[in-house]
Amino acid sequence: MSLAGLRLCEAAPPGGPRPPWSPAQETLLGLLAGLQQPPPPAEDVPGGFPAPTLGIGMDSCVIPLRHGGLSLVQTTDFFYPSVEDPYMQGRIACANVLSDLYAMGITECDNMLMLLSVSQKMSEEERDKIMPLMVKGFRDAAEEGGTSVTGGQTVYNPWIIIGGVATVVCQPSEFIMPENAVPGDVLVLTKPLGTQVAVNAHQWLDNPERWNKIKLVVSEEEVELAYQEAMYSMATLNRTAAGLMHTFNAHAATDITGFGILGHAQNLAKQQHNEVSFVIHNLPIIAKMAAITKACGNRFKLLHGTSPETSGGLLICLPREQAARFCAEIKSPKYGEGHQAWIIGIVEKGNRTARIIDKPRIIEDGAWPCSGVEQPAVRREPSDNDIVVSVHLSPGTFAVFMKQLPSNTMDDRGAVESRQ
Amino acid sequence: MSLAGLRLCEAAPPGGPRPPWSPAQETLLGLLAGLQQPPPPAEDVPGGFPAPTLGIGMDSCVIPLRHGGLSLVQTTDFFYPSVEDPYMQGRIACANVLSDLYAMGITECDNMLMLLSVSQKMSEEERDKIMPLMVKGFRDAAEEGGTSVTGGQTVYNPWIIIGGVATVVCQPSEFIMPENAVPGDVLVLTKPLGTQVAVNAHQWLDNPERWNKIKLVVSEEEVELAYQEAMYSMATLNRTAAGLMHTFNAHAATDITGFGILGHAQNLAKQQHNEVSFVIHNLPIIAKMAAITKACGNRFKLLHGTSPETSGGLLICLPREQAARFCAEIKSPKYGEGHQAWIIGIVEKGNRTARIIDKPRIIEDGAWPCSGVEQPAVRREPSDNDIVVSVHLSPGTFAVFMKQLPSNTMDDRGAVESRQ
Repeated sequence: MSLAGLRLCEAAPPGGPRPPWSPAQETLLGLLAGLQQPPPPAEDVPGGFPAPTLGIGMDSCVIPLRHGGLSLVQTTDFFYPSVEDPYMQGRIACANVLSDLYAMGITECDNMLMLLSVSQKMSEEERDKIMPLMVKGFRDAAEEGGTSVTGGQTVYNPWIIIGGVATVVCQPSEFIMPENAVPGDVLVLTKPLGTQVAVNAHQWLDNPERWNKIKLVVSEEEVELAYQEAMYSMATLNRTAAGLMHTFNAHAATDITGFGILGHAQNLAKQQHNEVSFVIHNLPIIAKMAAITKACGNRFKLLHGTSPETSGGLLICLPREQAARFCAEIKSPKYGEGHQAWIIGIVEKGNRTARIIDKPRIIEDGAWPCSGVEQPAVRREPSDNDIVVSVHLSPGTFAVFMKQLPSNTMDDRGAVESRQ
Repeated sequence: MSLAGLRLCEAAPPGGPRPPWSPAQETLLGLLAGLQQPPPPAEDVPGGFPAPTLGIGMDSCVIPLRHGGLSLVQTTDFFYPSVEDPYMQGRIACANVLSDLYAMGITECDNMLMLLSVSQKMSEEERDKIMPLMVKGFRDAAEEGGTSVTGGQTVYNPWIIIGGVATVVCQPSEFIMPENAVPGDVLVLTKPLGTQVAVNAHQWLDNPERWNKIKLVVSEEEVELAYQEAMYSMATLNRTAAGLMHTFNAHAATDITGFGILGHAQNLAKQQHNEVSFVIHNLPIIAKMAAITKACGNRFKLLHGTSPETSGGLLICLPREQAARFCAEIKSPKYGEGHQAWIIGIVEKGNRTARIIDKPRIIEDGAWPCSGVEQPAVRREPSDNDIVVSVHLSPGTFAVFMKQLPSNTMDDRGAVESRQ
């Protein structure tokens, strides 16, 4: 009776998009593929209709329960840190886990488990400063999502890992199966692309060889701003977008993570009942990240749509007449600051594929609002208010965790930390 | 509304029980402790009664759902490999995850997610041979538990990790809250202790310095047999015991894993509504493991009850008149071979603690039945039917994965592997 919704590898260690032992996603996919069961024949299913089925690579699994009409929807994800601020890293991990529920239009989460590994290469002091902040970030984001972390597991490992398991039991009306796009629909994206490019470019500020390759097209200040924008974008929940999927009658959606906008668009296209294809015309990208990717040759493949994102936006198929209203509504102050959406393409008749047109329009996005948080305009020396610690995250990667937030926020977190 | 059931660190990398960076469980516990929320006041709860609450260190979290009277029960665990056979390692990991549900008397599981990390130190050949077997072992054990693996996540990591998330939605009658022991109850244990000692002793066959310390009290053959017994014991589901908890009116239970029999008995004692304490008189131990632990001085603390176990048995508080019947019933052939249970102690009036008496009786257990599987009596050279591969699992640990099963089983698995 159980139906499939397998996750592929979307996490790669920090240190650049193509390390020598870069995961071969096809190989990992092969490991999971053997798990998938064929859907049960209709006569085995109460009511005679097959229950919802999700294919490999989609966001959550949907399990019909033994109890009247309810479904169990759940998802798991875990990550290696990609930003320097452990609190924000915790928020980002939680936002990314929840995003798989949001992609199905689910706005509630009944339970969150946290998966954590502490690096055994950290000193006691590093561990005691970094890990509680990461846990707090994760917990705060869960709270913002209306749920709590009630359990989890913590182990030691060479690398830090943070992730979780989000679970909800819901009525069929609470979720939108990602399979009903029709020709004429419009594709909407709710966060800008380029998060991984921004994170990498920011690491290159400390790597003269790499920095020399991009310094002609971008300033240090622009990289700092892009990194801040990426960090706050990744930490923003897709919950508002999930709610508006119902308001505006969305036909299908997915969230953009490790396979990039095109990879996830292709996965979504494959799931469709109707003979449709997705054509992407516009690429909203964090300001200057398109220039960096061009300066780096083929390294990032951002303009090809296959640059991995972390905690990206929802890609939603909406009826044509609803798309503009969706994009206007999501910016309403009643949902708080920081929400945006762009119409990026169309759904046409086709063979369940997705593509980006030859010369897509690049929409430079440089105005991610970060309410209440001071954004340092340039890289600075640590002050007394910073927690400055260093830790080897992976072979060859040296990350400095440095909190760059105002001291009042700092005190608040410090107090929480000491209570733990 | 969410209630707590936090897991502590129970996984340590292979290579002996006290590596130099051995996890300080208190520290990891501290990280999770900040997550725990106080239970909601009674007036916030439908019906006015507080919903079930589980404290830190118990086995699963129990979440009251928005849908009439149902509870979400779930648990997550992940592990570093401890046995050489990847197929058995997969079974053991799954048995250990499910065990947290079984400890609550739950016999069904609605969904299983698998968490997997592939070691990036493995060659392609090693990866392609080892990982599908581990996945198959995990999946087969899930199937034996009446559930399927419908999703999960796979990443690369320095070390192999395998684990999962088990979830069930159930009526209150389906689970037994671990908190109703009364003075006069009897403690029953459903698997022998000493799994980690057996796994370590087996590694020492290849470590002359370590082997010299124990060779006076144990033969190579005895270590091989103990290792086989430990492996099959760890791979056995506690599902039958969970079902019999209902039949024989169990008052509370937990499963024995990383904190050893005494650690988990203490955790369970703390959860009790009544003023009770647990006193352990008997220690059922895999044959010869008590002798090894004595020969090693304080290394294992097996006789102190704090030697970590992997996928251990259930420790169950049963009414006195039911305990012997429970132990007789679980051996019935109708549940298949391989099930045992021992009366190991009593529940008396006390202050919610647990202890082992001064000179506990050691019950040597050497008769774990492994139906249908040929047990090699002594370590042997690999044959053509073995998959022989080697992989560094952690700094200083070199494990040889070698399938030691008959060739007919082998062919079956090989075929499955090639289909993937």
